[in-house]
Amino acid sequence: MSSRNGKLTGIFTPNLVPLDSRGDINEAELRRYIDWLIDRGVHGIYPNGSTGEFTRYTVEERRRIIKIVCDQAAGRVPVLAGAAEANVKETIAACELYHDYGARAVAIVSPFYYKLSPESVYAYFAEVARHSPIDVTLYNIPMFASPIDTPTIKRLAGEFERIIGIKDSTGDVAFMCRMMQAVKPIRPDFSFLTGWDVVLLPMLVMGVDGGTNATSGIVPELMRKLWDLIHANQIDAARDLQLRILEVFDTMLFSADFPEGFRAAVELRGFNFGRSRQPLSDVQSIDRLALQRVLQCILADFGVVDAPSEGCVPRTGNLERDKVMQVTEAVMAKLRRRGGA
Amino acid sequence: MSSRNGKLTGIFTPNLVPLDSRGDINEAELRRYIDWLIDRGVHGIYPNGSTGEFTRYTVEERRRIIKIVCDQAAGRVPVLAGAAEANVKETIAACELYHDYGARAVAIVSPFYYKLSPESVYAYFAEVARHSPIDVTLYNIPMFASPIDTPTIKRLAGEFERIIGIKDSTGDVAFMCRMMQAVKPIRPDFSFLTGWDVVLLPMLVMGVDGGTNATSGIVPELMRKLWDLIHANQIDAARDLQLRILEVFDTMLFSADFPEGFRAAVELRGFNFGRSRQPLSDVQSIDRLALQRVLQCILADFGVVDAPSEGCVPRTGNLERDKVMQVTEAVMAKLRRRGGA
Amino acid sequence: MSSRNGKLTGIFTPNLVPLDSRGDINEAELRRYIDWLIDRGVHGIYPNGSTGEFTRYTVEERRRIIKIVCDQAAGRVPVLAGAAEANVKETIAACELYHDYGARAVAIVSPFYYKLSPESVYAYFAEVARHSPIDVTLYNIPMFASPIDTPTIKRLAGEFERIIGIKDSTGDVAFMCRMMQAVKPIRPDFSFLTGWDVVLLPMLVMGVDGGTNATSGIVPELMRKLWDLIHANQIDAARDLQLRILEVFDTMLFSADFPEGFRAAVELRGFNFGRSRQPLSDVQSIDRLALQRVLQCILADFGVVDAPSEGCVPRTGNLERDKVMQVTEAVMAKLRRRGGA
Amino acid sequence: MSSRNGKLTGIFTPNLVPLDSRGDINEAELRRYIDWLIDRGVHGIYPNGSTGEFTRYTVEERRRIIKIVCDQAAGRVPVLAGAAEANVKETIAACELYHDYGARAVAIVSPFYYKLSPESVYAYFAEVARHSPIDVTLYNIPMFASPIDTPTIKRLAGEFERIIGIKDSTGDVAFMCRMMQAVKPIRPDFSFLTGWDVVLLPMLVMGVDGGTNATSGIVPELMRKLWDLIHANQIDAARDLQLRILEVFDTMLFSADFPEGFRAAVELRGFNFGRSRQPLSDVQSIDRLALQRVLQCILADFGVVDAPSEGCVPRTGNLERDKVMQVTEAVMAKLRRRGGA
Repeated sequence: MSSRNGKLTGIFTPNLVPLDSRGDINEAELRRYIDWLIDRGVHGIYPNGSTGEFTRYTVEERRRIIKIVCDQAAGRVPVLAGAAEANVKETIAACELYHDYGARAVAIVSPFYYKLSPESVYAYFAEVARHSPIDVTLYNIPMFASPIDTPTIKRLAGEFERIIGIKDSTGDVAFMCRMMQAVKPIRPDFSFLTGWDVVLLPMLVMGVDGGTNATSGIVPELMRKLWDLIHANQIDAARDLQLRILEVFDTMLFSADFPEGFRAAVELRGFNFGRSRQPLSDVQSIDRLALQRVLQCILADFGVVDAPSEGCVPRTGNLERDKVMQVTEAVMAKLRRRGGA
Repeated sequence: MSSRNGKLTGIFTPNLVPLDSRGDINEAELRRYIDWLIDRGVHGIYPNGSTGEFTRYTVEERRRIIKIVCDQAAGRVPVLAGAAEANVKETIAACELYHDYGARAVAIVSPFYYKLSPESVYAYFAEVARHSPIDVTLYNIPMFASPIDTPTIKRLAGEFERIIGIKDSTGDVAFMCRMMQAVKPIRPDFSFLTGWDVVLLPMLVMGVDGGTNATSGIVPELMRKLWDLIHANQIDAARDLQLRILEVFDTMLFSADFPEGFRAAVELRGFNFGRSRQPLSDVQSIDRLALQRVLQCILADFGVVDAPSEGCVPRTGNLERDKVMQVTEAVMAKLRRRGGA
Repeated sequence: MSSRNGKLTGIFTPNLVPLDSRGDINEAELRRYIDWLIDRGVHGIYPNGSTGEFTRYTVEERRRIIKIVCDQAAGRVPVLAGAAEANVKETIAACELYHDYGARAVAIVSPFYYKLSPESVYAYFAEVARHSPIDVTLYNIPMFASPIDTPTIKRLAGEFERIIGIKDSTGDVAFMCRMMQAVKPIRPDFSFLTGWDVVLLPMLVMGVDGGTNATSGIVPELMRKLWDLIHANQIDAARDLQLRILEVFDTMLFSADFPEGFRAAVELRGFNFGRSRQPLSDVQSIDRLALQRVLQCILADFGVVDAPSEGCVPRTGNLERDKVMQVTEAVMAKLRRRGGA
Repeated sequence: MSSRNGKLTGIFTPNLVPLDSRGDINEAELRRYIDWLIDRGVHGIYPNGSTGEFTRYTVEERRRIIKIVCDQAAGRVPVLAGAAEANVKETIAACELYHDYGARAVAIVSPFYYKLSPESVYAYFAEVARHSPIDVTLYNIPMFASPIDTPTIKRLAGEFERIIGIKDSTGDVAFMCRMMQAVKPIRPDFSFLTGWDVVLLPMLVMGVDGGTNATSGIVPELMRKLWDLIHANQIDAARDLQLRILEVFDTMLFSADFPEGFRAAVELRGFNFGRSRQPLSDVQSIDRLALQRVLQCILADFGVVDAPSEGCVPRTGNLERDKVMQVTEAVMAKLRRRGGA
């Protein structure tokens, strides 16, 4: 399912990176995590994306992450390797290396820090496309990097066969439709992947080819089920599941600075991801524990993890309140147990 | 179709207002326009919306518009009357009057000019809801007015039965899903209408009840057909039509300051809407003529208007270039005809 | 000082409007307030500005406000009358009327609700300028209305003598400098007024002619003193005062939805302004009382009001914390008094 | 002047980096440039800032740049070394190294790519401050990186003596005043530097200590003169110069994606900076030549470069038009000379 006539399709997981107690890449845990994802049905792996905190690693670490993931995937699913580096020359060097590692394609985020004009964004990707030995996917994420507008996407798709798709993280369905209307007539082979998990169903209805969805790194079985329901044309069941996934995604997204909520969640699945490269204040560390308790209750409703032993109180949809309530319930339960002893 | 258990459903047309040569409301043309819309299948009329330029009329004119529309609709379709005035007291007076005129409900835009906090937005709508004799629809359009956030929508829906729905013009599918997840459990009767024409299909797939779509004021037959295709579960045909409607909508939206592109378009359907209340510069007047030619070519492809006698050249999707090309073609055709004479 | 070769100069007060117990304009209190402002040295009055909540009044009320203010000012200081109405025709009618009332000039906010392009903004003001019998001041406030960019200001200033100045509320010193560099060479008589109270000193240093400052409606003596210090070239003293005024302005601006913080403050000067047209929720009403206590402590430091009888605790600069602390102190003081009885 | 009781004061130049024909750092030219800047009176050098395109270099290159600059400055002026790396650990390593190189302090930009909350920004800087052996300056540039808000600045300044100042590139005078009011009472030794060249005078009037101004890398003699005029209390002359510098800055800033306009300008001063790491499209390369011609005319008015041999036509202030006109004039002059031959 993940490749059809060479097209990128399906659910690609932008994987988080586990760290050990010294803050270094935990290779064994990363390999175990990749296996776990593939076993639960994701169609591809996307290391060094925003979820994978690529900017917080050194050049050497970014290379090592791709090497490990490609090696562990071992051809079972395609690897879409994030390859953006400090400048065009370094990025092309990464493309060459990841090609050797066996990645299916690279994903290159639009230049960031500086907010570049469309002409500069074009010049950057054109230069990469001219020299890359591996297929290139544009990565549009305007909340973090220079936007890639529709005319620029059309121009790049029209000029460079090497550019084979776009990963878009705006979540803007109308914008994605505009892109598809502009590009599909000239490049029917072009892949459109959405990075906004909560609109995967409506995006697929409108014709995209798949998603690079951080939620699939936490509940791969649910995202795969959503994909299967849609492709079995069970739209009502798909909608119900999509709307329930909204709570999972929003809780992880709005609970902490991205992607810390996803790091907190993945630990509930039995992995040890260690402390993030971005330090947490004391207040944030306490808040993270409360968040994990809420997340455990949400995930328990799906049956993918056990509920806390003290049980869960109903959620209100107000995250701050829910965190207080779930934690209060946990403390009360402990007191009750002590009182009963 | 337009009302199910009292719920607002279907396509509501936010009607433009025709003016006569003195700049006053052209009542005869407005009545003819309303008939034309109803004949082509729209499920309701929504006067005094943003498309209807309500802010550019006097209090007396706004009242007259509602009176004419209610009178002309004559119960054939429900009227959702825009009722926002300068302050709560004036707004409530409009609610009372429009109730007398026979409107089905009012739509009240969130306070504008000042950007108000959620607490103030709540206080405003709560006060209106307490005194309105007619059902109230919240109108969320953050690009023009104070945003109504999801907790506030939930709070208002939970406290006031008088508030029966929301018209949302963000076009943000994820936001609409969040709203529905928050409100439907406590108010299954609540109506969700989207004001963003290019995502009507994905919004309906996710569970909204209808749309208030300016495009239905220009091509009512197409928007109605889109609605019917969706409800006949012909998703592929619906998607194709939705994606083609994108070009119509974008051309009208991005060609001129809203809603002048829609005014330019409706004239192609055989109506005389006169000059807008917002003056055009000389450059804008010329540009409007070029736009109309492009729009005529787009609409001719749907078979709802005749193509220009000189024919149409293929469109590039670049509006400015398309305007130049269509106009150039028209001039060339005229020169050819003269040369041939 | 308020007029030099006809130029608008000095501190213009954008006056708040007092309401009576029925919510109607309190004419007697408004007249008393205007006298009080003039007695304390402001150079002009600017009714129907954003501070004056012009959008929350009816057409008739807006007219009455200008009439009262012109009548009460009685030539002692010039009146700059806010004259924006629903459309060009209505705005021109207001210009004519306010000319008859004796206003020195009108101030016309850029069209709002719709966000218009520079070409439309130009067309609007050009049409007004062609027909107005009274001098026109452009009013640029991009946070609420369509922005007026520098090329448009230059174009309007170059074409219409009737347009004599601009009131800018961006607070952006660089933007104001760009405007002055563009306009002064072609219109040395053009007035530049800043509506951002906390940068009055740096703006005056860079060459503006005055300000329309809401703070001067609360502490007219302090804003006048700031003006006098600058013109006496006492820059160090002026800086100290300007920086202290920052706390007054910020507390009023960030404490409540504008301009409610200013309404809360003016009552401390001995006026009864009644309840605003925008309703307050219960939470907001309580919060307003806490705010007034903080404001009383701030203003007492300047000696313009008495400190609360219970005294003031030191402020932290964190408004929410300060509100809690001042209110706590007040309650404690009352308890102490009771305990001592 | 550049250091008073250890405080950072004066004009620090955020230096551009010259590249050779292979795209590598041109060490000889960089050393010559640093000498040239110091000879023309700048008070300090600030390598690896945004102007210095630090994100476009490798870790090794960033280190080399600091090493060269420190070595060449040789204690004549202090070096403020940009030290932000991929994560806290790497950033601290850079602090240690730059301390050894002899930098006076480091400037650390707030984390970028991800938009972090104030609590995360605090945690990041707190961790750096705890371990840095060299004084740390916060670098706030919200258009590119996570904003550092006033409460966070106050918190960091209050807790860590190691943090000695802030470089702010918002250009927002009111924001800078708020910062100073919050921090100066608890840290009178704290330095406030503005990175927004066009408001240096008003910022200094309000009490900042200096600037890190890219314009001083192009016309160091003018920025130094502005500084001297202000400190000689010649405010009128300072204002005139500041307003003229506006044209220089705006032309460089708005003519191309930052900092390419500054790269184009510095070449007019007799340096060879080579091609930027960010590729230019063909259109951009042509546009850059036109820009240089306009810049040459602007700088010639100050007498710091010769006017083009063909002369300059008056500028309109509309950059695109000015580029066309200056280039047209140059071509015409060449044709005239040929015609005359």
